[in-house]
Amino acid sequence: MKVRIFDMKKYNICVLGATGLVGSEMLKILIERDFPFENMVLLASSRSAGTVSHAADRDIVVKDADEETFEGIDIALFAGGEIASGDYAAKAVKAGCVVIDNSAYFRMDPEVPLVVPEVNPDALEGHKGIIANPNCSTIQMVAALKPLYDRAGIERVVVATYQSVAGTGKAALEELKNQSADILEGRDARISCYPHRIAFSLIPQIGSFGVNGYSSEEMKMINETKKILGDDSVRVTATTVRVPVEFGHCESVNVQTKTKLSAKEAADILSSAPGVRVYDDPAASVYPMPIVCAGRDEVFVGRIREDLSIDNGIEMWIAADNIRKGAALNAVQIAEELIKRNLI
Amino acid sequence: MKVRIFDMKKYNICVLGATGLVGSEMLKILIERDFPFENMVLLASSRSAGTVSHAADRDIVVKDADEETFEGIDIALFAGGEIASGDYAAKAVKAGCVVIDNSAYFRMDPEVPLVVPEVNPDALEGHKGIIANPNCSTIQMVAALKPLYDRAGIERVVVATYQSVAGTGKAALEELKNQSADILEGRDARISCYPHRIAFSLIPQIGSFGVNGYSSEEMKMINETKKILGDDSVRVTATTVRVPVEFGHCESVNVQTKTKLSAKEAADILSSAPGVRVYDDPAASVYPMPIVCAGRDEVFVGRIREDLSIDNGIEMWIAADNIRKGAALNAVQIAEELIKRNLI
Repeated sequence: MKVRIFDMKKYNICVLGATGLVGSEMLKILIERDFPFENMVLLASSRSAGTVSHAADRDIVVKDADEETFEGIDIALFAGGEIASGDYAAKAVKAGCVVIDNSAYFRMDPEVPLVVPEVNPDALEGHKGIIANPNCSTIQMVAALKPLYDRAGIERVVVATYQSVAGTGKAALEELKNQSADILEGRDARISCYPHRIAFSLIPQIGSFGVNGYSSEEMKMINETKKILGDDSVRVTATTVRVPVEFGHCESVNVQTKTKLSAKEAADILSSAPGVRVYDDPAASVYPMPIVCAGRDEVFVGRIREDLSIDNGIEMWIAADNIRKGAALNAVQIAEELIKRNLI
Repeated sequence: MKVRIFDMKKYNICVLGATGLVGSEMLKILIERDFPFENMVLLASSRSAGTVSHAADRDIVVKDADEETFEGIDIALFAGGEIASGDYAAKAVKAGCVVIDNSAYFRMDPEVPLVVPEVNPDALEGHKGIIANPNCSTIQMVAALKPLYDRAGIERVVVATYQSVAGTGKAALEELKNQSADILEGRDARISCYPHRIAFSLIPQIGSFGVNGYSSEEMKMINETKKILGDDSVRVTATTVRVPVEFGHCESVNVQTKTKLSAKEAADILSSAPGVRVYDDPAASVYPMPIVCAGRDEVFVGRIREDLSIDNGIEMWIAADNIRKGAALNAVQIAEELIKRNLI
């Protein structure tokens, strides 16, 4: 879905964290989707400043974010992590910029819309300069939950995730490869990004743990889902797990709806949902997997079946590229939606 | 827990499928645990017959199962798969042998006890010559469910699994290694054991699919859990997933109990449960993982916390070595329990 810009207005864009995995994907997606940008400012920490990025047939020198005034920039895509978001967002907004922030910093702020454009675009109306991009695992789950919610209501969601290392960043991708090679060749695996070895293993920890025993990633899925659906009565519990996969998050999602949906009804509803692709022919071994969703825009849903343990339950298996729909693409789609609604 | 055999009676043992992953682990465990065996007969298909196994300081030639009469054998551990179980079990029982069968062939037969010794040893009483060893994923789950069931009752279980390739056999271990090396070195991965690449990916299919959309592995977890707990009112739903891990299955298990348990109560109950090890200090990054449980006998339980979405819910994360407790060890423990109860 490309935005048709009839007035051909172009925007000055800035990407903060432009040298990271999400930032560089944002750049790629802006160009892929012919986003109407005029000037492109790329920002990073002083450590990465000075590198040259080749985008849209231009060589752009990455600047130190500390030296940026954000004057003249219309839209800033922030992918520099929570600390950078805290440091620069207020300054950018003050300079007249709309910030679309990929970090968790502003997500639960009641003044800040938390948006998946296919799910709750109306939340963008009346924004105050900052829009938060939800957590990667949450985005793909709510994309599949919303159409079911609209039709049948949702009582409760039980989710277990299978999350790729790309969510941690470039260093984790290297670590998975290096550890895998070390183990295949009989060497000890060197551990740096995670508390334990990830190659040929699993780690049931994403983020840090609260006193209730839930990890920060699990609490994000619980709280952000309620905020995006705009319904605190939806009950959610989550277990989030890192798996030795490069790109693409998978989720086993058990949904208890208010009224009964057959598996076929659920599949039909999801088939016409925006941004969702039903990929579900298990007898032919067709179901979402990391190798299916990596590099793709859609949220893939399969293994759709009626829960045998309750009357109003649907089981489904969801996969999406966590760097694209789970981060960079969703942020760019928010920018497109802001333009479409004249909110910039 | 070793069985103390005061009368020093020794048994003639046979292992069918002795050259496979589970069969060779059975052999190793019989010796590790000083199982009181006299003669040891090793059987395999004609393809593997003639190979020599070195067990308990003896070289034993593996015989063709087709040529075995089972005369004089007291206990036969079957690990040759469903077809072999169907082919040889009746003959072995007729010859006076007690068969402990690791395959799914007899598990749901109402005449056949399905036993996890820590959970339902009384089911062994009155056996008719065949005892079924449950599915690997089921064994580790019921080991943790039973103590909670006894204390608080269980309404419903929602489980998502993370299952290692060892469950498929030796060829799958090789395939994971080969595919991983191929991908690391930029080659295409060759696919043979699974419908898709498993290295650096996931496959949400274990077994084949029924008309209800559940896989055979998922139905095993649902049906076997009810049979082992001896309670058809326990409602279970499952999603089973193969992950690129060599040894050790993990499970995210959400339990809705009949009466409220706090996380601390659940952990205390599990701490005193036989065969279970509570391994749960997430703030120190202590939780079950494949690298924790591989090669170990215990069922590891961690991430024990109260479900935030319902009043009577416990979330937990369970890991066990699927070849040991999930297969070979549980079978040997059944044999030990039969001896202890004079049921052989």
